[in-house]
Amino acid sequence: MQKIGIGLAGLGTVGTGVYRSLLQNRLLLTERIGLELEVRRIAVRNLALSRSVKPPAEMLTDRWEAIVDDPAVGVVVELIGGIDLPYELFRRALKARKPVVTGNKALLAEKGAEIFELAADAGVPVFFEAAVAGGIPIIKSIREGFIGNHLQSIHAILNGTSNYILTRMTEARINFPEALQEAQSSGYAEADPTLDINGWDPAHKAIILASLAYGFWVDTRHVYVEGIEKISAADIRFAETLGYRIKLVATIRADSNSAIEVRVNPTLVPKEHVLASVNGVFNALMVRGDIVGDTLFYGRGAGQDPTASAVISDLAQAAIWIDSGGKAFGFTPHGLYGKCLPTDELMSAFYLRLTVDDRPGVLAQIAGVLGSHNIGISSVIQPESHETPAVPLVLMIHNAPFGRMREAVDQIKNLECVKAEPVLLWIL
Amino acid sequence: MQKIGIGLAGLGTVGTGVYRSLLQNRLLLTERIGLELEVRRIAVRNLALSRSVKPPAEMLTDRWEAIVDDPAVGVVVELIGGIDLPYELFRRALKARKPVVTGNKALLAEKGAEIFELAADAGVPVFFEAAVAGGIPIIKSIREGFIGNHLQSIHAILNGTSNYILTRMTEARINFPEALQEAQSSGYAEADPTLDINGWDPAHKAIILASLAYGFWVDTRHVYVEGIEKISAADIRFAETLGYRIKLVATIRADSNSAIEVRVNPTLVPKEHVLASVNGVFNALMVRGDIVGDTLFYGRGAGQDPTASAVISDLAQAAIWIDSGGKAFGFTPHGLYGKCLPTDELMSAFYLRLTVDDRPGVLAQIAGVLGSHNIGISSVIQPESHETPAVPLVLMIHNAPFGRMREAVDQIKNLECVKAEPVLLWIL
Repeated sequence: MQKIGIGLAGLGTVGTGVYRSLLQNRLLLTERIGLELEVRRIAVRNLALSRSVKPPAEMLTDRWEAIVDDPAVGVVVELIGGIDLPYELFRRALKARKPVVTGNKALLAEKGAEIFELAADAGVPVFFEAAVAGGIPIIKSIREGFIGNHLQSIHAILNGTSNYILTRMTEARINFPEALQEAQSSGYAEADPTLDINGWDPAHKAIILASLAYGFWVDTRHVYVEGIEKISAADIRFAETLGYRIKLVATIRADSNSAIEVRVNPTLVPKEHVLASVNGVFNALMVRGDIVGDTLFYGRGAGQDPTASAVISDLAQAAIWIDSGGKAFGFTPHGLYGKCLPTDELMSAFYLRLTVDDRPGVLAQIAGVLGSHNIGISSVIQPESHETPAVPLVLMIHNAPFGRMREAVDQIKNLECVKAEPVLLWIL
Repeated sequence: MQKIGIGLAGLGTVGTGVYRSLLQNRLLLTERIGLELEVRRIAVRNLALSRSVKPPAEMLTDRWEAIVDDPAVGVVVELIGGIDLPYELFRRALKARKPVVTGNKALLAEKGAEIFELAADAGVPVFFEAAVAGGIPIIKSIREGFIGNHLQSIHAILNGTSNYILTRMTEARINFPEALQEAQSSGYAEADPTLDINGWDPAHKAIILASLAYGFWVDTRHVYVEGIEKISAADIRFAETLGYRIKLVATIRADSNSAIEVRVNPTLVPKEHVLASVNGVFNALMVRGDIVGDTLFYGRGAGQDPTASAVISDLAQAAIWIDSGGKAFGFTPHGLYGKCLPTDELMSAFYLRLTVDDRPGVLAQIAGVLGSHNIGISSVIQPESHETPAVPLVLMIHNAPFGRMREAVDQIKNLECVKAEPVLLWIL
């Protein structure tokens, strides 16, 4: 039986999960793939640290180069995090013709184009199922399962932390700071939750999905990203009255043939839409293909074990690749002239909440500004309020380009009758 | 650019979809896989038939052997249906070292063991994504995505026709014959809907899933199968009162290490369970792995286009296999000592509806029989009824082995106070 040597770069949460699961289900894996997967070298930052798993001391090194260069290592698993150092690791491993498995979404979003060019030049595959929605085999499904489809859209909840916070804000009617604190004390948010909350973690994932689906590497600068920091309990309540839940949704869409849309932002999702009932730390993706129609995938997006499951699936594929000397695959560019729609041209219906003086004429003034931007109002709601003298005013806006909408809001915000920063949310 | 020749055996609904989609998305596929997929030969039963797609006349033949033997054909797609003839096709194609793509669930359920032995001997892969839940890449996900997991359970709705009928019975409060007729006139049920309704279509799919998950080919004789013919509007209503929906659920489970459970039967699903909200012709699978946890897949299970999408994904993989001369894979036996639990030992909670005399002492008599079989009652409901003199009596039963439950029901049915055939349903 051929043995395939694995080098783990990083023994943090996910690395520990991979190491433990490989031991736990070792026999099963061997039987299923006809190859033995054996961890041979592990690079860690601090050799002295006490850990929940105890690999033999001689397996550990504090130099990642040592695992890449080790002739006993056939596949390298990059679980270091960050950008520059893992990028160096990729360069070195691919040059040595060793497949790399990673869960590093930030790296792929920032350096995907370079990495897959290196991989193509070397003829060596790169695997990254763990980078998007760990427990859900979405990379495999998009790349292989839907290979015959033009993907028309993907709507997804890709960040468990922000979804947990929004779920708690909805259920317990608490505000953002309180929900964040709760998420942190329950272990669902990191001490520094910046990337989860400001939308960039799901944006990195959306970039990977969009690139796979549309065949060109999407530039981070062309992605519109908004986080959940500004969502208030009041908006969640008003949205509820209107039949919506607020979710942090990644939207990837190709309406026209000329350009695609990639954005992540808090979005009003109709209550009966399946994404509206995805709660807590779960992830879900709704994928629409021109042949397959609508499909939905749902599962745990992060955490030690689901992510380890994805890494192991990639390891099995890398091992089969080594054993069969097959062709490299990974990211195949096929949309070389693809481009992203400018943010200003993104079309959506919107929810606009204003805080205004409670006096006649105010609505006419606001409607006037919207009208002058050729923006149509579909309904106006004045929610009951005990605040005085300023009151909330919610406007539901017909499909309009985001750029024009933004201009109108800027103008409205400067009206004398508007008393606080307007809240503008997208509607699914 | 290498061209891979395809032979289509069968140009019915799915064959037509495959032919049309291959033409429609030809460029995309070529760009994605770097190979050209070209239909070269098509076998049909009746050459004279007028069709919605018009392949060149010289492409058509009425002998399936002609496409297998054609040296221009590298991959054979079996879409004939039935058992004996397709089995002959598999033998001939695998002998000629040509990969076969199929959506034939009955064939795999009946002859899977033989087919995969032939494939292993020939070193040629067999692909069957289209056999289970067409639009959902579940075969790929189980075989590759969850390869590192012991699968603990799969609960699935795998037949669109019966799910449509049950959905209509629930929504419109109509009885089975009426809902069936509606399904037929809407095109959601075939003229002969036998396999859809009696549970054998989903049972074939469950056998394929169980075999993949547990590594030994499950014998059809060890699968407990019950259809939806006996479900009445009354049971759906009573179940609703108790907080359940009735669905035709395939259950695949490995509770112990010694044996697995494979069954398909109408099942009371708690309303808040995600399978309860899968309506109409949709399919859904809830897969639980020991590492990945719970995941859900949802999409169209059948129909021309979703099935074609699955066939094309398999064709792409077969083409890559030919191009790279990789190793064969398909079904890898790894649970050689696996076996199925005897039907009598399957454990479940149950719903038992009786039609009984409306007089004192009846409940005591029935409870007595259950007690003598060591079966516990969790609740008793006497639904309101305008029927006289016999009335419905619904008992919710604690977890019990099916065999003992069946014996008790046989005895109850012969009591003088029981006036109609008892209805026994499983609870999820």
